[in-house]
Amino acid sequence: MYIIGELINGMYRNVREALAERDASAIKTLARRQVEAGADALDVNCGPLSKDPVQDMRWLVEAIQSEVAVPLCLDSTKQAVIEEGLKACRGKAIINSTTADTDKLDAYLALALKHRASLIALTVDKKGVPQDKERRLELAAFILERAAGAGLDAAELYLDPVLLPVNVAQNQLEDILRVIGDFKLLTTPAVKSVVGLSNISQGSKNRSIINRTFLVMAQAAGLEAAILDPLDQELMRSLITGALILNKAIYCDSYIEAYLKSKLKS
Amino acid sequence: MYIIGELINGMYRNVREALAERDASAIKTLARRQVEAGADALDVNCGPLSKDPVQDMRWLVEAIQSEVAVPLCLDSTKQAVIEEGLKACRGKAIINSTTADTDKLDAYLALALKHRASLIALTVDKKGVPQDKERRLELAAFILERAAGAGLDAAELYLDPVLLPVNVAQNQLEDILRVIGDFKLLTTPAVKSVVGLSNISQGSKNRSIINRTFLVMAQAAGLEAAILDPLDQELMRSLITGALILNKAIYCDSYIEAYLKSKLKS
Repeated sequence: MYIIGELINGMYRNVREALAERDASAIKTLARRQVEAGADALDVNCGPLSKDPVQDMRWLVEAIQSEVAVPLCLDSTKQAVIEEGLKACRGKAIINSTTADTDKLDAYLALALKHRASLIALTVDKKGVPQDKERRLELAAFILERAAGAGLDAAELYLDPVLLPVNVAQNQLEDILRVIGDFKLLTTPAVKSVVGLSNISQGSKNRSIINRTFLVMAQAAGLEAAILDPLDQELMRSLITGALILNKAIYCDSYIEAYLKSKLKS
Repeated sequence: MYIIGELINGMYRNVREALAERDASAIKTLARRQVEAGADALDVNCGPLSKDPVQDMRWLVEAIQSEVAVPLCLDSTKQAVIEEGLKACRGKAIINSTTADTDKLDAYLALALKHRASLIALTVDKKGVPQDKERRLELAAFILERAAGAGLDAAELYLDPVLLPVNVAQNQLEDILRVIGDFKLLTTPAVKSVVGLSNISQGSKNRSIINRTFLVMAQAAGLEAAILDPLDQELMRSLITGALILNKAIYCDSYIEAYLKSKLKS
């Protein structure tokens, strides 16, 4: 599983305060702790309350990459914010995200190609979030077709089926699990998928167990990447155990410690 | 998920001692605690060291059903032990288990019909435990054909794909997960499946997390029943959360407590 740490997000008060005070050390600590806990990449989001998200994005990217060298997942609904992040980013970037709306999709495909970035594409369009598996597949096929037309390497694309909260869309979660497997049937080699894991438990009481239970189910369905909290130790232990069961990590009695140690070395 | 409590098994020292001393209260407590924790049925196994498994099975069945009224899952490789359990059993019984060997399978199908019992059939035969999904499916198809020929209602049959320990057969676990889904394609209505969950972590260090991670993966694949330790609270919480995600339990903030309470009432 490709783990994208979610904690550098202006939605969280500590990040909002660090942004307001330009406290780079707080951001650097958050970056380092997530990478040490097993994150392969870090999501960077100024949050909905940012008054100058373009400058905030640049500052966050610079603060983070002065501390760690992992890919950054530039997370904004605004193209100007993404572009500023891409300009500031010295290493690999992941654009998070485009929708399946033609204009936006084409513009973001061009951006990904220009900056040699990966691109997360949500199976959602102006008509809203799909209510079933079939609509998600339809939008996925459209995204794949435009990406191929634009010349983006399939390995640089991640489809996001749009994970919804269990307390509002409980009847859609099994479809979302199934569609992760179905996405793989659309192309050869199979396109990768990603979810924003914490969405599933938004507003729920037992957040951690809901997150980790869905994650291992999605892992068995073939999910390749997730945006999640790598500091949630039970979540990470579940994910590592899932990799073990799916034969993606070699068994030894202390497989959890061995996995975490190998992450720390990389 | 149909939960079959695994704790009344002569493999465990407390049960072995209760058997030796004919301490019915110890067995009754084990029975009651499992049902209170959410078990729908109880496995009954005299263990490999029993010197008189026929009499031990009768005594266990009588002790258990003087305390609780749930179905009993009579667990032995010896037909005489199963038959004694069936005779002693006042309520619903589940025979655990037959193999796919023709002679044994036909004899056990006849027993299930005679006693209106359910039957667990392992996808294993004299040639040994299958090494891949295809062989498991082949044996499953054979079992289903003989069961239909004998006139056993498909609802009374559980296929067991034979769960192997992760520390010896790690590369087979994904196949076992997939075959749980594939079993459903063999008949209409789909045949049910069951696993002996603790097998997967036999000899491993992190038993509980391995068990619960596999269980929710299998649940997403459509597993209907599992023989497990209902006193493992993290396991039960994972299972209930899995049911929630798969839309088989209605969401409320305290869905775990609500589920357990509804089990206790039944």
